[in-house]
Amino acid sequence: MSQPRVLRAADYPRMPWKNGAGTTLEILRDDAAGDRLEGFGWRLSIADVGQSGGFSLFTGYQRIITVLEGDGMQLTIDGQPSRPLRSLDALAFSGDSQVDCRLLGGAIRDFNLIYSPDRCSARLQWLAAGKSTLFSSAKTVLVFSAGKGLRVAFEGEALVLGQYDCLQLEDAGLRQLSFEANAAYCLIELS
Amino acid sequence: MSQPRVLRAADYPRMPWKNGAGTTLEILRDDAAGDRLEGFGWRLSIADVGQSGGFSLFTGYQRIITVLEGDGMQLTIDGQPSRPLRSLDALAFSGDSQVDCRLLGGAIRDFNLIYSPDRCSARLQWLAAGKSTLFSSAKTVLVFSAGKGLRVAFEGEALVLGQYDCLQLEDAGLRQLSFEANAAYCLIELS
Repeated sequence: MSQPRVLRAADYPRMPWKNGAGTTLEILRDDAAGDRLEGFGWRLSIADVGQSGGFSLFTGYQRIITVLEGDGMQLTIDGQPSRPLRSLDALAFSGDSQVDCRLLGGAIRDFNLIYSPDRCSARLQWLAAGKSTLFSSAKTVLVFSAGKGLRVAFEGEALVLGQYDCLQLEDAGLRQLSFEANAAYCLIELS
Repeated sequence: MSQPRVLRAADYPRMPWKNGAGTTLEILRDDAAGDRLEGFGWRLSIADVGQSGGFSLFTGYQRIITVLEGDGMQLTIDGQPSRPLRSLDALAFSGDSQVDCRLLGGAIRDFNLIYSPDRCSARLQWLAAGKSTLFSSAKTVLVFSAGKGLRVAFEGEALVLGQYDCLQLEDAGLRQLSFEANAAYCLIELS
């Protein structure tokens, strides 16, 4: 296995949106085979949305979005209103869709997986505080902590993730991971 | 997607072991491409182990075992002792290995995934009581409830699994499942 990599929230680069309605903190992307705009296989990011407005198109991509902070939002996806999306209520939709976002209160922060179903298969899971044990042979395992003090143990190693930190594991065979969480966390597996 | 299928614990067929040390309740197997002995792609079962003794070989297979009931066991795997395996502490090992089981107290009941890594990739996860939401595009998703009253919701459907019941979902695209559990449960995904 390549070395496990811990990405700390303080280090994520911030990028303003073209329409001025928000900014994106990029956690990680797989851009082995493409340019920096739309060529990635998958991308994990946090967005700070300051006002209602349209989302960018990501043609050919699948998206899963989760509100992390704030009163939430309602999306209109190709003219169809979503349920009101409150904290940690994840929603999947196509990057091909015309999406308009209406904030339900003030500014929100959300968490985004965008991936190409043609280039990888993805699995995303939100877990509440508590313990869990996982055996996975996914090519890439990402662990994203929504709160402080997520304990992760694997292959004799143990570490603690702070809020919005992310652990990346690549290219093991069947691996065991154990979690002990005080708050919600998200597992993403890509193959 | 083919219809979701609920397998009830009361209906699992029971098979005695050749060595007389226990019996197996078979929950489900994928035997599309093989005979009934060793030809399956994967098999999910519960074993009742009444006395210490050897395990059968499953050459070419990967195994993940979890004690469900009783004081637990310690395995000796190709001469190496495992940690003491108590309830819900899962362990992975090769079906090629010579395995000897020593009961730590009385009889136990355990839960087994046996699969061919050449024919499928597997993911197994134990979750504690609480809520979880999952987006998965695995070919097969199996949900096994270790306790009573596991609520599972997916694609507008909702159902409740009793103790040791199993839900089987096949061949969807990206699907969302939500869980509300009073006790531990296991997610198995095969692709």
